[in-house]
Amino acid sequence: QGTRDHPPAHVALRDRLLAAVVACFKRHGAAAIDTPVLELQETLTGKYGEDVKLIYKLEDQGGELLALRYDLTVPFARYLAMNKITNMKRYHVAKVYRRDNPATTRGRYREFYQCDFDIAGQFDPMIPDAECLKVVHEILSDLQLGDFLIKVNDRRILSGVFAVCGIPESKFLTTCSTVDKLDKMPWEDVKSEMVGEKGLSPEAADRIGEYVQLHGGLDLVERLLQDAKLSQNKLAKEGLGDMKLLFEYLTLFGIAGKISFDLSLARGLDYYTGVIFEAVLLQQENEHVEEPVSVGSVAGGGRYDGLVGMFDPKGRKVPCVGVSIGIERIFSILKQRVEAAGEKVRTTETEVLVATPQKHSVAARLKLISELWDAGIKAEMLYKKDPKLLKQLQYCEDTGIPLAAIVGEQELAAGVVKLRDVATREEVRM
Amino acid sequence: QGTRDHPPAHVALRDRLLAAVVACFKRHGAAAIDTPVLELQETLTGKYGEDVKLIYKLEDQGGELLALRYDLTVPFARYLAMNKITNMKRYHVAKVYRRDNPATTRGRYREFYQCDFDIAGQFDPMIPDAECLKVVHEILSDLQLGDFLIKVNDRRILSGVFAVCGIPESKFLTTCSTVDKLDKMPWEDVKSEMVGEKGLSPEAADRIGEYVQLHGGLDLVERLLQDAKLSQNKLAKEGLGDMKLLFEYLTLFGIAGKISFDLSLARGLDYYTGVIFEAVLLQQENEHVEEPVSVGSVAGGGRYDGLVGMFDPKGRKVPCVGVSIGIERIFSILKQRVEAAGEKVRTTETEVLVATPQKHSVAARLKLISELWDAGIKAEMLYKKDPKLLKQLQYCEDTGIPLAAIVGEQELAAGVVKLRDVATREEVRM
Repeated sequence: QGTRDHPPAHVALRDRLLAAVVACFKRHGAAAIDTPVLELQETLTGKYGEDVKLIYKLEDQGGELLALRYDLTVPFARYLAMNKITNMKRYHVAKVYRRDNPATTRGRYREFYQCDFDIAGQFDPMIPDAECLKVVHEILSDLQLGDFLIKVNDRRILSGVFAVCGIPESKFLTTCSTVDKLDKMPWEDVKSEMVGEKGLSPEAADRIGEYVQLHGGLDLVERLLQDAKLSQNKLAKEGLGDMKLLFEYLTLFGIAGKISFDLSLARGLDYYTGVIFEAVLLQQENEHVEEPVSVGSVAGGGRYDGLVGMFDPKGRKVPCVGVSIGIERIFSILKQRVEAAGEKVRTTETEVLVATPQKHSVAARLKLISELWDAGIKAEMLYKKDPKLLKQLQYCEDTGIPLAAIVGEQELAAGVVKLRDVATREEVRM
Repeated sequence: QGTRDHPPAHVALRDRLLAAVVACFKRHGAAAIDTPVLELQETLTGKYGEDVKLIYKLEDQGGELLALRYDLTVPFARYLAMNKITNMKRYHVAKVYRRDNPATTRGRYREFYQCDFDIAGQFDPMIPDAECLKVVHEILSDLQLGDFLIKVNDRRILSGVFAVCGIPESKFLTTCSTVDKLDKMPWEDVKSEMVGEKGLSPEAADRIGEYVQLHGGLDLVERLLQDAKLSQNKLAKEGLGDMKLLFEYLTLFGIAGKISFDLSLARGLDYYTGVIFEAVLLQQENEHVEEPVSVGSVAGGGRYDGLVGMFDPKGRKVPCVGVSIGIERIFSILKQRVEAAGEKVRTTETEVLVATPQKHSVAARLKLISELWDAGIKAEMLYKKDPKLLKQLQYCEDTGIPLAAIVGEQELAAGVVKLRDVATREEVRM
């Protein structure tokens, strides 16, 4: 339940997509690591907030208590701590596992790929953070997914907002997860969840509402830096100062136009400590909507400066920032597009079919195909001793093989091969 | 326990290796599929003989009872049956899981890659089987692993041998697993296991011994086809007839010299029904040994015509033959070789470091690096606002970056970049 077999057409399309993502990660100088799909259960506990119930556990068959990884971020932090690495730019493309309810959550699976790019190390503020946003911008542009927007916020700004609105610190994380729903439900519903479920006063909720409904660019950052209450809060001031620097760097990268400082962005996971971001695709303009509407998140990430320290016996921290590309949603979009265009994705790369028009020539075909393989040419033949020529040419058309190398009695006698272009039916002897 | 984190140097080397294997699979026209790491427990039971105890089970958290896949062959057979596919050439590169005792079994892990190539469908005898051996031959030759030998045998020949030696059919599978140890222990020990543990009579064991210690080429096949007892056994006769045809095809492929018909090859898994094979690396000649000694199996496979039928509600069979490349052992060999040669494997592909000799030029670096990325050039910069030039050049030497693009005040004023070859220290302005 909630998992899929991927037929060749899907794997071929997905490999194309993953190749583009990995090419971007390599362009930014990242190295790949690989970690086991199994982690100790204790490694995963206390990292995912309310989502802990979605972790797949292994049966206790003796030995360690194991679970399937839930994301690639926690294994990366464990890896850094275990190997005492304080400085690393890495990518990791692998599947993760969540016991979500796939029937009720459309398009979400229990096994899915994540493509993560992270920068770990003590550096000057916002340079790695800006690079993560550049990576997202490059990938979404390369894949030609249409218009998109990258929302950014900072956990410290949110904490500052909650503090100046009179929310006790113990309720920050749970308030975060309610605020995060503002992109899917109207403010009234968010407010009633804050008041009804999370126990905030209606006045405090309203004060929060005034902030979290704001979004803009550098101008909004500047305005909030002048905000009478917020400018008095240490965390908010730090966050806003860094946000200003981030926008400077994004302007130098030429991508500030696609970035929206959005105070409603909160993100669910416990481990974020600074900048957070999420990329959404916007509905196409030709669909005649007045304002672009988000059609879903395709990348997300942020800064998590405390996570590595949780795995270090002495609590030594390694600041990290990273992004995860939501490859599954992008895959769905590309698949729909390929299907809509009637494009046929070839599932093999075979260049030539070795064929024969007469019976009793399996030996000639085996000899020729062996020569082709040894020369590095992608070649196939039918596994019948005496297949009909028509069937062999039909196979080329069905699977998109462009050439047939035909060895008949005449060709054998003359020591040549007849090469046929399947589409044009042109033939040359060689 | 029994799993590993792979640091960048290992992943880089492994990716190189996997690329060579996948290139061969594609050269032979195979398409890729992907299946979940999770299978229903019932899918895996009854397929692996005594090894069933090595299957990793998931905790019963409600819903289906799941396990981690044990190999890629059973998931492939399930995939064919579920999708009613009767004809497919596929490859699959993925990790599999076995609760082996990694401490006592050197070089064996609980999580490891398999690289499988399989041909499913009703075809003329031995053409796909011969191609599987050609695939193994190409991969081991491409990877330049030194001399190797591919042992072949046939389950039907073994069954015939057991039958004419007076072994009851109920003991065929368990006798197989004892015979399979002949490459690791002398005949006397194998015999005493047959008699002591498996309950064969010493006379029957001796009769088996006369056959299973034979190995050779086409000549041995011909001899056994004339064998007074064996030639009377229907299964053995079929198996020997196909073996003769296989050698004909392997001769056409030009690889018969590396193939040894070895009656001691039995292979453990229950699902094989016909040809079985295993590739071993031979000790190098320069180690001055009289006869080449096997240093371990690096590929194995065979024909399994009954497995798909086990997953079809009506029991419809799809004949299959395939091979699995033992990538982990090959990886160990290549890693040792790289380390012995003192070769440094680059873990990133960065072409140029954007550097600066003066302070306060982070903006210039960000602008330039952004242009490089957008042009598809692999570029890095240090994440410090004001790094020392020496430190930047040292980073190039440490990580193997060949070029540094330097933007100093002079270059900025002149609108140029100074490109420095890190190794030769030559510089050009451009």
